[in-house]
Amino acid sequence: MSYVTHLECSKCNKQYNSEEVHQLCECGAPLIVKYDLARIKENFRKEDLKDREPSLWRYWELLPLKDKKNLVSLGEGMTPIIKMEVAGPEIGLNNLYLKDEGIIPSGTFKSRGATVGVSRAKELGIKTLAMPTNGNAGASWSTYGARAGIKSVIVMPQDAPEITRNECAITGADLYLVDGLISDAGKIVARAVQKYGWFDVSTLKEPYRIEGKKTMGLEIAEQFNWEVPDVILYPTGGGVGIIGIYKALRELQTIGWIGEKMPRLVAVQAEGCAPIVKAWEEKKTESEFWNNASTCAFGITVPKALGDFLVLDAIYKTNGCAVAIADNDLLEAQAVLAAKEGTFVCPEGASLYSAARKLREQGWIKENEKVVLLNTGTGLKYPETVNVKVPLLQPNDNIPEA
Amino acid sequence: MSYVTHLECSKCNKQYNSEEVHQLCECGAPLIVKYDLARIKENFRKEDLKDREPSLWRYWELLPLKDKKNLVSLGEGMTPIIKMEVAGPEIGLNNLYLKDEGIIPSGTFKSRGATVGVSRAKELGIKTLAMPTNGNAGASWSTYGARAGIKSVIVMPQDAPEITRNECAITGADLYLVDGLISDAGKIVARAVQKYGWFDVSTLKEPYRIEGKKTMGLEIAEQFNWEVPDVILYPTGGGVGIIGIYKALRELQTIGWIGEKMPRLVAVQAEGCAPIVKAWEEKKTESEFWNNASTCAFGITVPKALGDFLVLDAIYKTNGCAVAIADNDLLEAQAVLAAKEGTFVCPEGASLYSAARKLREQGWIKENEKVVLLNTGTGLKYPETVNVKVPLLQPNDNIPEA
Repeated sequence: MSYVTHLECSKCNKQYNSEEVHQLCECGAPLIVKYDLARIKENFRKEDLKDREPSLWRYWELLPLKDKKNLVSLGEGMTPIIKMEVAGPEIGLNNLYLKDEGIIPSGTFKSRGATVGVSRAKELGIKTLAMPTNGNAGASWSTYGARAGIKSVIVMPQDAPEITRNECAITGADLYLVDGLISDAGKIVARAVQKYGWFDVSTLKEPYRIEGKKTMGLEIAEQFNWEVPDVILYPTGGGVGIIGIYKALRELQTIGWIGEKMPRLVAVQAEGCAPIVKAWEEKKTESEFWNNASTCAFGITVPKALGDFLVLDAIYKTNGCAVAIADNDLLEAQAVLAAKEGTFVCPEGASLYSAARKLREQGWIKENEKVVLLNTGTGLKYPETVNVKVPLLQPNDNIPEA
Repeated sequence: MSYVTHLECSKCNKQYNSEEVHQLCECGAPLIVKYDLARIKENFRKEDLKDREPSLWRYWELLPLKDKKNLVSLGEGMTPIIKMEVAGPEIGLNNLYLKDEGIIPSGTFKSRGATVGVSRAKELGIKTLAMPTNGNAGASWSTYGARAGIKSVIVMPQDAPEITRNECAITGADLYLVDGLISDAGKIVARAVQKYGWFDVSTLKEPYRIEGKKTMGLEIAEQFNWEVPDVILYPTGGGVGIIGIYKALRELQTIGWIGEKMPRLVAVQAEGCAPIVKAWEEKKTESEFWNNASTCAFGITVPKALGDFLVLDAIYKTNGCAVAIADNDLLEAQAVLAAKEGTFVCPEGASLYSAARKLREQGWIKENEKVVLLNTGTGLKYPETVNVKVPLLQPNDNIPEA
């Protein structure tokens, strides 16, 4: 049993039957999952969570799966929130937290979208899925696809993190590299999907990935004991996480689990690919394609996101903002977080620390506000971002004093 | 407040004050942490766990830290237990589970030992720690050391997984490679520790790492609702995990949380380095140094473990056994687990699936017994174990049918 009532277009509000397989609305915009929140409010209690496993599926009533037999899970979610006791005060923030999405199967937040998306795909009888990816989404969907017995066809830029190739390969996906960006991979997938009738799981082209990402917002609310923080910073490529977190918090308000206060949502991008930041600075509601996109924070190299208008809406509605960070700044932040806090975050996640510093300097964040950096993945998947110079000893050599 | 009463030698039973810094017993054997279990039995209830966070620190009463202010945590523990619904029945096991220690900071079970060991080191005022490592332990201790503000000096074989170098480097450890094995690294560390007075955190040379590893046993018991499984397979190098799990289960028996049934503990090693297996086959209580040790399951390349007699004792007392697996078998198992279950495990963890198959074929495990594979780390840290051949497309190319 699920509480889903229907799918609804995020632009034109046209409704679709959630028991059928749908991709985009006929107007070209993403479809959103709608629930009977009034009935959830009646039947679902915070206390129910006490007896549930520490996975994102603890929020079953707010998720779209009907039958537990279709659940495709690897124990994902309830990732830790860690206080930055040293790195926080160093940039003038006394209540800085990092939610660490590195502690999840496949090492990135992409697995949230994958567990829900693949479970629902299985429930709807999908046999083959296809997607363009900057690496991590492809790795996660291949992984959950393998567990579900669904075939995955993955196309990624040749510059995507190499380890994500290994994950796709070992889980048995059909993997292709492209001499180009994710937008090029997207066009190749679109042609193939058209030709072979595969299910297109490109960002926001199916409605269930958002529901998985949404659980980051649910967890933040629960982990802060239903008193939401003041600011959440999020590294923004396709932007599904920020869209999902906003949706989660709105749903929690509707069922009465949190009050009227909303965290200010901050989209962080790299200076080498900052279409959302540009749009926000120009007070626009949609972004423009970013030419010659390039950054070492590869996961957020998305020149034009299909859901850009939803990301911008979430920022405007929560009085948030958008910030662009230079590659050298975010790499420095990565080293600071590792050395001061023991958190080895991905470059995308590291950009948030630079952004928090910038916003604190500008006075946009106050020193005692509760601030959450949503680190989207583990640094383990990006070994090339670390400089290692290490002496080689022979067995009889001695080491100098530390 | 802690329930620790004292430290006790695992061989000669000599007692030591747990408020002092100790390494080995003067007889050369490892020291074990002893608790006032009678008082824990009185004061600690299973129901208390319901309100606690899903980290290994939920078992506070059975851990050695006195003051929460010394806690050095990154949210580790309560790793998922996943049923192998496809890969299990394929080898004739209807209740095969994998406990996935890849879903933890730094991606391996070594972080359990590190969070407890480093927290207690901080509590005891340690400023510099030193260790030889096959890579993952060094990465974990550097990580937690960084968070604690404790300096780490790490020596690892040059063949250790490369990503572990990056972790040591980015967290600010003093890292050295050695042209040799972990036993060579151990000698270098021993000389340096002697000279500089650093705290030696080599396997079992300080008493608190076992306490961290012990939590794997506590979690297995809790996650199976205090009905322990029939068999637990464990990839065995230094063997601290198996020693810890056995200690945990004995303590749970003493406080009355589990009954008399003990899982049969199985030590799994690689054919290229199997000193424990050899000793068990010869019914000995200690192992001999394994010459020319070599296996792709690098983490278990330990030619002679300091705690070998404790590992063998745990196997004998639980009617367990020891099994050696060839490298090509475990690499095949790694691919099977990824493709059938979506679990990308490390080579050490993969060896357990081969071992389970072997023991099932021999009839040593029955088809309906509950069997747990304790996967010690994520495959993400071993990209070189995956063969990837992937076609490169140009943006205008098309992909063939799946």
